[in-house]
Amino acid sequence: MDIANIRNYVKAQLCEQRFLHTLRVVDTAQQLAERYDSSLNDVTVAALLHDVAKDLSENELKVLIQQYDLPKDLLQYDVELWHGPVGAKIAEHHFNIRNQKILDAIYYHTTGKANMGIVELLVFVSDYIEPARQFPGVNIVRNIAHENIQLAAREALKRTIVFLISKDVTIHPQTLLAYNDLTKKLGVIED
Amino acid sequence: MDIANIRNYVKAQLCEQRFLHTLRVVDTAQQLAERYDSSLNDVTVAALLHDVAKDLSENELKVLIQQYDLPKDLLQYDVELWHGPVGAKIAEHHFNIRNQKILDAIYYHTTGKANMGIVELLVFVSDYIEPARQFPGVNIVRNIAHENIQLAAREALKRTIVFLISKDVTIHPQTLLAYNDLTKKLGVIED
Repeated sequence: MDIANIRNYVKAQLCEQRFLHTLRVVDTAQQLAERYDSSLNDVTVAALLHDVAKDLSENELKVLIQQYDLPKDLLQYDVELWHGPVGAKIAEHHFNIRNQKILDAIYYHTTGKANMGIVELLVFVSDYIEPARQFPGVNIVRNIAHENIQLAAREALKRTIVFLISKDVTIHPQTLLAYNDLTKKLGVIED
Repeated sequence: MDIANIRNYVKAQLCEQRFLHTLRVVDTAQQLAERYDSSLNDVTVAALLHDVAKDLSENELKVLIQQYDLPKDLLQYDVELWHGPVGAKIAEHHFNIRNQKILDAIYYHTTGKANMGIVELLVFVSDYIEPARQFPGVNIVRNIAHENIQLAAREALKRTIVFLISKDVTIHPQTLLAYNDLTKKLGVIED
């Protein structure tokens, strides 16, 4: 895979603000990949492509969900959750990416899922903590990210669920399964 | 069904404190059943039996989960979630109750589920708001319960999910599905 090619393609797909966000996620994910001895190539490709479908219109996303035969129940959830799965399909079909770790990291970067591997965890957490993010609690997750990536992801999931509940909006079941899975794996952590 | 029989059986199964809680849930559920024009008989039987299995030991519950062929994944969740499904099976097998509304109200009174009917909603909410309950926010749910039972149940689910997350414990997927379902049905409610 030619990373420069992917970068150019992503740049052409996104507004400037979103492309700069993407570059910050790539940078954050690369730093964490070194910390956790993960594949720099896989993490870079997944981070570059994570939002590739985010500037598509609702209608374009809907067409691609059908065209790529993605689960129909996606359409029952907020449009915010559609671009991950569509992005994974674009990565697969446009760049012929077959590495499931990369595809899953793109697919699940918004919802999370049970049994996230290291590439998924790094992209999920990097998207949450990239330097321009500034919502309540983001510094807590930033600090944990360099100590324990599973704990950082669980913390981000907790805050996402509580935030969505405070807004009375539906939550994708994968997000709960991701929280449950990490909670079981982490066991009881003493303060 | 002979309600006096059921009452005596439940009394024999439970410690005094739990039996008094059960009577308060029955009383609360009966008041709400009048308010919502629901079957007083169904609500009374379901409320009387909702905790019938709660004083069984963890081991007894485990044996009954296997004996009654209840979903094995129950065992992956907190023991607090086992007595509802087991109670429904006791209601079915000991009292020959075949009314699915009653059985579901017992089965799902702790987790909730998607598409709760009125008997389920009344038992679920009554268990949360019976007069001796005094955790933060219970008065808010009490007040809503007499206005909109779906909104009261959704409020109870929200508070339960946020409470469980604050304790870093897993959440049964049915609880999230119940929240999502009511959130969709309630739509946007202006403050």
